[in-house]
Amino acid sequence: MDKSIHTPEGVRDVFSEECKKKRMLQRKIEKVFQAYGYQEIETPTFEFFDVFSREVGTTPSRELYKFFDREGNTLVLRPDFTPSIARAVSMYYTEEEFPIRLWYQGSSFVNNSSYQGRLKESTQMGVELLNEDSPMADAELLAMTVRLMLDAGFREFQLSIGHIGYFRALAKEARLSEEGYHQLRELISIKNYFGVEELLEKFHLRPEQRRALASMTQMFGGPEVLEKAKALTRNREALDAAARLEEIYEILKDYGYEKYICFDFGMLSRFQYYTGLIFQAYTYGNGEPVVKGGRYDRLLKYFGKDAPAVGFCVVLQPMLDALERQKIAGPVPRTRTMLLYPDFLEKMAVRMAKDHRKEGLDVALVPFARGKVLEDYIAYGKRNQFGGIVYLQKETAIYAIDLTVQEIRPVEIKQMQGGTQS
Amino acid sequence: MDKSIHTPEGVRDVFSEECKKKRMLQRKIEKVFQAYGYQEIETPTFEFFDVFSREVGTTPSRELYKFFDREGNTLVLRPDFTPSIARAVSMYYTEEEFPIRLWYQGSSFVNNSSYQGRLKESTQMGVELLNEDSPMADAELLAMTVRLMLDAGFREFQLSIGHIGYFRALAKEARLSEEGYHQLRELISIKNYFGVEELLEKFHLRPEQRRALASMTQMFGGPEVLEKAKALTRNREALDAAARLEEIYEILKDYGYEKYICFDFGMLSRFQYYTGLIFQAYTYGNGEPVVKGGRYDRLLKYFGKDAPAVGFCVVLQPMLDALERQKIAGPVPRTRTMLLYPDFLEKMAVRMAKDHRKEGLDVALVPFARGKVLEDYIAYGKRNQFGGIVYLQKETAIYAIDLTVQEIRPVEIKQMQGGTQS
Repeated sequence: MDKSIHTPEGVRDVFSEECKKKRMLQRKIEKVFQAYGYQEIETPTFEFFDVFSREVGTTPSRELYKFFDREGNTLVLRPDFTPSIARAVSMYYTEEEFPIRLWYQGSSFVNNSSYQGRLKESTQMGVELLNEDSPMADAELLAMTVRLMLDAGFREFQLSIGHIGYFRALAKEARLSEEGYHQLRELISIKNYFGVEELLEKFHLRPEQRRALASMTQMFGGPEVLEKAKALTRNREALDAAARLEEIYEILKDYGYEKYICFDFGMLSRFQYYTGLIFQAYTYGNGEPVVKGGRYDRLLKYFGKDAPAVGFCVVLQPMLDALERQKIAGPVPRTRTMLLYPDFLEKMAVRMAKDHRKEGLDVALVPFARGKVLEDYIAYGKRNQFGGIVYLQKETAIYAIDLTVQEIRPVEIKQMQGGTQS
Repeated sequence: MDKSIHTPEGVRDVFSEECKKKRMLQRKIEKVFQAYGYQEIETPTFEFFDVFSREVGTTPSRELYKFFDREGNTLVLRPDFTPSIARAVSMYYTEEEFPIRLWYQGSSFVNNSSYQGRLKESTQMGVELLNEDSPMADAELLAMTVRLMLDAGFREFQLSIGHIGYFRALAKEARLSEEGYHQLRELISIKNYFGVEELLEKFHLRPEQRRALASMTQMFGGPEVLEKAKALTRNREALDAAARLEEIYEILKDYGYEKYICFDFGMLSRFQYYTGLIFQAYTYGNGEPVVKGGRYDRLLKYFGKDAPAVGFCVVLQPMLDALERQKIAGPVPRTRTMLLYPDFLEKMAVRMAKDHRKEGLDVALVPFARGKVLEDYIAYGKRNQFGGIVYLQKETAIYAIDLTVQEIRPVEIKQMQGGTQS
């Protein structure tokens, strides 16, 4: 049974305080989504392959978990929620022309090569705002990202924003081949300036085209980057992209969140479905982004509804890791009380537990086993995150212990209840 | 794109008010789990095949969703949480000898034949109490089931309890073949009295053995069934099983929940891992059980830890269906407010939305589009479950509409906020 007691590589169990911390964070994020008027949606864990096909532009096929249904159709564990939600909206909101705001949470699955050391199942939470193509919509998602980062407890973080349209316009003007486009996109993404220079030499470009494309690895920073972007080209579409980011930035000032924004024209997502704004939130000491999002105005058409949309997703694990590393998440409140009882006081224990639960306490009944001593239960209580013990010795003698303090000591039950409920 | 806009058979989307109702129910159930001192655990959506193999005694292999990882190992989407939790506990609580209380929630997957019309992905929530073999532990799970049924809003429901040991003891004494055992188990389960009689004639049984086994389809009802069970046999193990149920019943009296209990010795789960108490909760007008559970004292040993355990799981969809059918779940409170603004009041809208959110309101910003009239937004608000509209006309003129009442009428914002928050 050696294999059966392990979990497959890239997936894992989450329990005890780690699970509680995760849930607390999820509730905070959920609250932000609701405050901005989003409604929850649940989509199936697996979908027909077509929902995540190459045309959709999400995760590459080789990284999808695929299997068959009884009819022989190929099913896929969702690698990403956005295509599923685009499908659902096309199905249920076919005629709706006003804004649709949806949020989701659940697992997504990417069958990456294990050497990358990343999780293959990861919990994601996110939002999609559909039927809205305005800068106000883009700004709303950025404002929500700032809000949820703040509510999660982060103080040092930044939101990088870019626009895929700028690069696409320059690449189109330069008449790059598909291969050239992808090579260049990749090199710019990883900010490999010399690699970009080298590659550009292979193409036949006008000097100003080369200069603009070569500059993309360095076009990040404050609002001055917008000026640079506008000065580098006279391409109409590229200028429109820069102007759009400017408009979004102005609205973020109204939200009071502009100080968290950093422009980055070289941030080019591997998701092909993005058509406009792209953004990612980073926090101190974290290489991986904790929030990823962007505008995808052509994806819904694939599913039968021609509608603009913008969305983002929070990847829980890197965010939890960052909170841990930055020592932001304090200790989890220990709210469980152990009601320890000898056999002959079973009835009393049941009654007392019932009363305490009615008052809002979390009570676990634990029988005092023969051959054990109180110290055994104190140790058990500590290693299992109990806040305290109420020990029934006789009908009238009740002894309460607070486990949340360094020095284990008897307390009044009332006192302890207050302590454990906080 | 015909296929891509549909979901595979047996899975579906949940959104809008249905999703909110589901989440409200989940929160109620979660509260019960916590009140009884259970801690949440998350296990991976898929596991190695061995975790759900034939020896474990869960869902048959042909009903599992199977696929491969990059190393060629067979992975399975979990059909049932109990084996996963047994595996996790064997891994992380190897040395723990005191009670372990865990709860979980998530999707489980059974690749059943579609003609059964049942969902292939279903949300389950449940608990496992490990390292405790006492009747108190069994009774606790039954009490929790009653509590969560009451908290969900049910008034008419019953908890059928049986004990697999009674049937197993009689079958063992009768020296049934494995095939005979399964045929008989199946016929008793579906309470096919004549089928049982017919089958029993094929076996060589003593008259009292035949009588006892034949009676099992009818051994359900109040506590008098316990007397009948004891009178029918002198088999030690069978009598122990009946005595165990009696003890559990006595404890349920201390909880004050005995009136919800119904004995059913013929309730024999298809899960082979059960070793003692088996139970199911039914409610008025629902053929399918909404809660299923039992004791499994030998399952953990398979994963390397020899420990007794008892657990149950709530199947959300039939429970939600029952609440709907019994008209228990009232309307979902409509807490979203639409903040409708003309272009030139964008700044004011952002500021106002921010203030309202700070006060705890859920606010969706909606631009007033050219060519539309207020009635369009009232209709949109109604079909998208908004509680009200705050319409900014000029810097000073704000018009508020309550959508939760039959007759649409203007109200004071304050008034509406109160209404939408309830």
